[in-house]
Amino acid sequence: MLPQALENVVNAIGRLPGVGSRTAERYAYFLLKSDPKVAKTLAKSLDSLHAGIKTCPKTFALISSDETLSSLYTDPTRDKSVVLVVEEPLDIIAIEKTHSFQGTYHVLGGVLSPIDGVEPKDLHIKELLKRVVDDVVHEIIIATNASVEGESTAIFLQKAIRKGNQAVKVSRLARGIPIGVDLEYTDQITLTHALNGRTNYE
Amino acid sequence: MLPQALENVVNAIGRLPGVGSRTAERYAYFLLKSDPKVAKTLAKSLDSLHAGIKTCPKTFALISSDETLSSLYTDPTRDKSVVLVVEEPLDIIAIEKTHSFQGTYHVLGGVLSPIDGVEPKDLHIKELLKRVVDDVVHEIIIATNASVEGESTAIFLQKAIRKGNQAVKVSRLARGIPIGVDLEYTDQITLTHALNGRTNYE
Repeated sequence: MLPQALENVVNAIGRLPGVGSRTAERYAYFLLKSDPKVAKTLAKSLDSLHAGIKTCPKTFALISSDETLSSLYTDPTRDKSVVLVVEEPLDIIAIEKTHSFQGTYHVLGGVLSPIDGVEPKDLHIKELLKRVVDDVVHEIIIATNASVEGESTAIFLQKAIRKGNQAVKVSRLARGIPIGVDLEYTDQITLTHALNGRTNYE
Repeated sequence: MLPQALENVVNAIGRLPGVGSRTAERYAYFLLKSDPKVAKTLAKSLDSLHAGIKTCPKTFALISSDETLSSLYTDPTRDKSVVLVVEEPLDIIAIEKTHSFQGTYHVLGGVLSPIDGVEPKDLHIKELLKRVVDDVVHEIIIATNASVEGESTAIFLQKAIRKGNQAVKVSRLARGIPIGVDLEYTDQITLTHALNGRTNYE
């Protein structure tokens, strides 16, 4: 029903997560009505996406192809003895936006999931344990998601780290009531975490 | 914070309507994790989008560059004496999906909007009036949206058509309670339309 050139764009955009055919049509039509430069710019950026990016061999964060290590690792102002462990590279951006963390990052590249066949060897755990020794790490903050897989990965990690080095402090991001949400609208699991993890006035 | 190649994709995708920076990041990261072919295919389709599409000089529907007229117009099984008038080319797809219309289409290319400076001469109204004569049209169904602009465009069109040809039947898509929605959840304006436009059992 659509001209082939438009159909091709609709199908290609429809591959994006959560984009149905209606949304894909709307995006494609928007691009068609816009200055051709908008579509061309997007095309050009997509064309050079994979070639322009690689993962940092130390932290597994995404870096430009012309870099050797993540700038968040090489930056001398960052504390290499504190490592925050995340599932995916984009999680780093969420933490960085807080401007509240001055340590370094380590990307696991996923979570343990026996159903999906993801075992410890598939994640960058060995490399993390090596960093504990190499960078004399004294604290590891585990920031995996609150999913079943995220939680079990956190427990696995904690045991693996303790096994190698009893002295290193291992912590987990706090669970509790998010800012701006009223008590009465908070779910029971979150509220249980908030109660158990209550903080004392010093 | 992001590698330049990824940042470029995020920025370009962020130009799409309703796509914020978070969603753009998610799309870009999805493409990065997927087979490079997915991004390349999208890039290629976007690159040839504008060159592959033009508008039908008769109906103003979108057609491939190598076509001369919309196939929905040239198809001998379609009734040229019935014309359904829509705002935008994508509206045709919504109607075609119903398989309930065998006439032809005419795309206005927008709606009258004094605030945005859209006057009758900016829409394909002259061409519609010409079709009324050329194709001996006996019915025009106006399917502009229910917005203020859509309604006033419909009224303007109806008057313009009547002025040129008293015999042509001009109708408007029915307003009423959509299928699957309960009476108690229907808004008052829709309900008023449903009451006024009630259909008799024959």
